[in-house]
Amino acid sequence: MSETKQTPMQLALAQAQAAAQRGEVPVGAVIIEAKTGHLIATACNRTEERNDPTAHAEIMAIREATSRQGAPRLQDCDLYVTLEPCAMCAAAISFARIRRLYFGAYDAKSGGVDHGAKVFDHDTCHHKPEVIGGVNETEAAELLKEFFKERR
Amino acid sequence: MSETKQTPMQLALAQAQAAAQRGEVPVGAVIIEAKTGHLIATACNRTEERNDPTAHAEIMAIREATSRQGAPRLQDCDLYVTLEPCAMCAAAISFARIRRLYFGAYDAKSGGVDHGAKVFDHDTCHHKPEVIGGVNETEAAELLKEFFKERR
Repeated sequence: MSETKQTPMQLALAQAQAAAQRGEVPVGAVIIEAKTGHLIATACNRTEERNDPTAHAEIMAIREATSRQGAPRLQDCDLYVTLEPCAMCAAAISFARIRRLYFGAYDAKSGGVDHGAKVFDHDTCHHKPEVIGGVNETEAAELLKEFFKERR
Repeated sequence: MSETKQTPMQLALAQAQAAAQRGEVPVGAVIIEAKTGHLIATACNRTEERNDPTAHAEIMAIREATSRQGAPRLQDCDLYVTLEPCAMCAAAISFARIRRLYFGAYDAKSGGVDHGAKVFDHDTCHHKPEVIGGVNETEAAELLKEFFKERR
């Protein structure tokens, strides 16, 4: 399968590109089983298509992965997403017990991990994943920049 | 319909009771069209049933309402929920452009409105609903207390 030749973040970027082609803000996410490297969910932003403000890439990926596993927690899984998660998605990542969160571009305007609500940095957050930001950052940021440039 | 005789929070409490009977943490939510008082969504927590950590009552209600309306925003709607929303649900409420948020019990342990991340209190939050906490607070808190007492 082609997925074995691509890194998880490259797969997430491909999801983001597919989203852009459908007129969605280009954000993609994948969930990987950490031990095996097995891909258990790929998703992208579908808020426009579904008229659903909760249909962010991370939420879609978590719902796909938990549904596939028949369990609400993904302890041994890592989530890769092309953009810093918002507060909604950061909290969902915590609830899903994601082991490690990798994200691409930082989001000073709407992010909820390193910006704003900083969801993981409070006692009310009962599971904090390990966080690695800035993975393939330039490519992820470029995708978003292009998308919004074309819309203006 | 019986709903006309009950307040929206009483309807949300009934949803919470139904959740408890199915072994779910008892939280219920309803969405009302503000001008007409028309009920457009009723939901409860279904995280256990669906193996979905994002299936909180508020998320379920927003998804039901936006799906029914065929639009991702609920500008003229109010959301009633029996417990202070967590960070995930608070952000979803903001994305859905809910006009007014009424909640029952305060949640010092996991809340994201008056506690912890305080999602609405940051520049990264682009819509802040009017917030009224403590509606039917005793009843909402009692439901949760009973539920967890029986589980111990």
